Amino acid sequence: MEIYDLIVVGAGPGGYVAAERAGELGKKVLLIEKEHMGGVCTNSGCIPTKSLLNAAKHFVHAEEGAKYGVVCSGVKFDLTTAMAWKQDTIETLRKGIQYLMKKSGVTVVSGTAEFLDTSHISVGDTVYEGKNILIATGSSTVVPPIKGVDSPIVTTSREILEIESMPEKLAVIGGGVIGVEFASFFSSAGAEVTVIEMMPEIVPLMETEFSKLLRREMKKVTFKLGCRVYEITDTGVNYTDAKGVNQTVEADTVLISVGRKPNVDGLEKLKTTQGFGLDYSKYGIAVNEKMQTNLPNVYAVGDVTGKSLLAHSASRMGEVAVANMFGKGALMRYDAIPWVVYSLPEASGCGMTEEEAKKAGYQVVSASMQMRANGRFLAEFGKKAGGLCKVIADAGSGRILGIHLLGGAGSEMIFGAAAFIEAELRVQDIREIIFPHPTISEIIKDVCIAIELPNQGETDA
Amino acid sequence: MEIYDLIVVGAGPGGYVAAERAGELGKKVLLIEKEHMGGVCTNSGCIPTKSLLNAAKHFVHAEEGAKYGVVCSGVKFDLTTAMAWKQDTIETLRKGIQYLMKKSGVTVVSGTAEFLDTSHISVGDTVYEGKNILIATGSSTVVPPIKGVDSPIVTTSREILEIESMPEKLAVIGGGVIGVEFASFFSSAGAEVTVIEMMPEIVPLMETEFSKLLRREMKKVTFKLGCRVYEITDTGVNYTDAKGVNQTVEADTVLISVGRKPNVDGLEKLKTTQGFGLDYSKYGIAVNEKMQTNLPNVYAVGDVTGKSLLAHSASRMGEVAVANMFGKGALMRYDAIPWVVYSLPEASGCGMTEEEAKKAGYQVVSASMQMRANGRFLAEFGKKAGGLCKVIADAGSGRILGIHLLGGAGSEMIFGAAAFIEAELRVQDIREIIFPHPTISEIIKDVCIAIELPNQGETDA
Repeated sequence: MEIYDLIVVGAGPGGYVAAERAGELGKKVLLIEKEHMGGVCTNSGCIPTKSLLNAAKHFVHAEEGAKYGVVCSGVKFDLTTAMAWKQDTIETLRKGIQYLMKKSGVTVVSGTAEFLDTSHISVGDTVYEGKNILIATGSSTVVPPIKGVDSPIVTTSREILEIESMPEKLAVIGGGVIGVEFASFFSSAGAEVTVIEMMPEIVPLMETEFSKLLRREMKKVTFKLGCRVYEITDTGVNYTDAKGVNQTVEADTVLISVGRKPNVDGLEKLKTTQGFGLDYSKYGIAVNEKMQTNLPNVYAVGDVTGKSLLAHSASRMGEVAVANMFGKGALMRYDAIPWVVYSLPEASGCGMTEEEAKKAGYQVVSASMQMRANGRFLAEFGKKAGGLCKVIADAGSGRILGIHLLGGAGSEMIFGAAAFIEAELRVQDIREIIFPHPTISEIIKDVCIAIELPNQGETDA
Repeated sequence: MEIYDLIVVGAGPGGYVAAERAGELGKKVLLIEKEHMGGVCTNSGCIPTKSLLNAAKHFVHAEEGAKYGVVCSGVKFDLTTAMAWKQDTIETLRKGIQYLMKKSGVTVVSGTAEFLDTSHISVGDTVYEGKNILIATGSSTVVPPIKGVDSPIVTTSREILEIESMPEKLAVIGGGVIGVEFASFFSSAGAEVTVIEMMPEIVPLMETEFSKLLRREMKKVTFKLGCRVYEITDTGVNYTDAKGVNQTVEADTVLISVGRKPNVDGLEKLKTTQGFGLDYSKYGIAVNEKMQTNLPNVYAVGDVTGKSLLAHSASRMGEVAVANMFGKGALMRYDAIPWVVYSLPEASGCGMTEEEAKKAGYQVVSASMQMRANGRFLAEFGKKAGGLCKVIADAGSGRILGIHLLGGAGSEMIFGAAAFIEAELRVQDIREIIFPHPTISEIIKDVCIAIELPNQGETDA
């Protein structure tokens, strides 16, 4: 029987990054994947949606380009070509991950892993032994038990990425990150889109003023807030609105995007030779800051832990797990994880909202600024475009607690906020960093300058 | 006579930022500008070029969008509309600066400043007294004494921003940042463009491999390197090529972009009451790290110092000058100034090139990576697009010395590199920062992971 230093179950961004890092350390690593390399992220999540959203952005630019001097006619969105580009991107990235695994000396096995005990896993008839096991089995779409949820017009985020013709009327149930991104794509590409959200506001991880502005900027989407869906028919969605009145939205396609659940099926079989089982529930596998489970040499990372369901969180967890198995050790930190909503316009953030910071007991100072105060934003989006930047800091020390962006290339700027928070930089430090002009990134510095720190006075020019 | 705490001469990004900061400190500030608020940057530099380049980018997207599924026909670039958008941007920003001055309590005077002594300046018939003087008079285009330089087809970067019809054939003399940006704009918008550069490579501040790749990616531009222009006629440019052979490029428009010179006219009158003069030459005003000149209470910032001719350098110098006049003090640092070439694709960098780091005596480690290894780059630009990221670090400590980017939204990412360098972060620190996925920014972390630090071994997972 083959004995590996590490067996990784699941080749998503948690699993494959962990396998790669361990392989680079010279360890003997086995990676088991039942479907495609890259997991949900590469195949039916981050990558295909960003590929389609980029096409939609260019479509909107072509439609609206006349104001800049870009004149064209007969602008049309060709879903088939967009889907083909998306598919090509996915396949190139799958191959890229395969190449990385090969380069790092990782053995890849295709099939479904069955847990035998804390050091044995079978795939089909073959049993593998691992000194360490890493569970990175990810998550799946929650399909709530709504009446009519088996209607032929119902899709999940996975299926809607394979549709062959553009919906005319799309109803999105759930206004979280995934729902909003799909709403942005389909509305930009020409569909009539309604988002139905149970909570009083979309994307709850955002500052409320940002959620509001995002709704306003997604002009073509109708948002129904505080509404509860009670039935899906073959022609639409029936819901009770915020006032308790029953309403109907017509739709030829319904997207369910109310959340994701950890993939914990089969974990009941994972027991030590003494018969101790894994500590997990339907909310995920319990892990500590080293990504260790309650069982010796068994680690878990990514969505299956139920903590921070983001691809980059999973990858970092994978790095932390490997560092604790073989290296110098590391602890997973959750205070500097950036997030992005890749809608048009993009929203992004890192760290706490003002409300969260106050709840955490900080004496908070903050400032925010309209993006149109920024030269490049103005040059590229014009004086009527909405956009916002907010910075939250600890009043005493000036330490940055959160940075939030709406508009521009926020997705590509927000790693800087993660660095500021991770390096514990203060508002005063950011003021002394030279930001390139003209860039939208300058707004972060400008907001830091606008923050009034107590006792700042004349000495702090 | 009015007595001011500070008189600033020149309302570009050095002058107006200094005026604003001093005003915010409650100081009585006078700002003198002979032309428009915002200086060259707002009126005939950064802002108008970025405005036009954004239009050109959208034009290229419309032309090439079919591969993503964006179908349109009759794509045409309408220069008049692009110029009107640009002009509107400029005027909005001018008003924005006027508003900032008002808000900070800065008095603005329109006219040409005449230096009387180190505390007196006249504008027309009015004499103003200042306890401190800040010279921020900027720079102007160098027009070299080439035969035929007075040909009607010759323009500078200022004049070409006012042309009313698209050139058919544009010859650009000088392949520095300004020349390359204009070449990118006009070639993208449909003109036939040739860049003639005396040096063996364009944009000397870049890593050579980046310059090469940038030329390759600017597919529509013809670059003539190592060539010396000896004559401009009414129909083109005559030059001697790298082999010493005389050649001709036909052109209906010629752009001169061989450099800029500090605006030092009139400074000979600036003397102390004892008759001591200002230390300056045609290369600029001599300043120390506090932005002080040799004369008491006389400071200089921005292009007129001849150091780092960038808008954001000028602004930071302005902040430093004000901090030394009134505040806690500050020293100007030149090691973490980011730069951007806003061509299509964009190039940007911060810190040293590998060659510069070696010359400075560092034991250097570095790595670079093709951008197409990055998921979002691939999703947005495709697998044939060129792009590059390089990180240079000190081998002993791992401290980041330079980061260089070509492709994607590099302009909006490079402030992060400035922060890394300013905060003296190490390659090891960057590896622990969580970058959002999928973003092009991740390439920076990936390159940091690829760097082999000496004695890293197994302990550094």
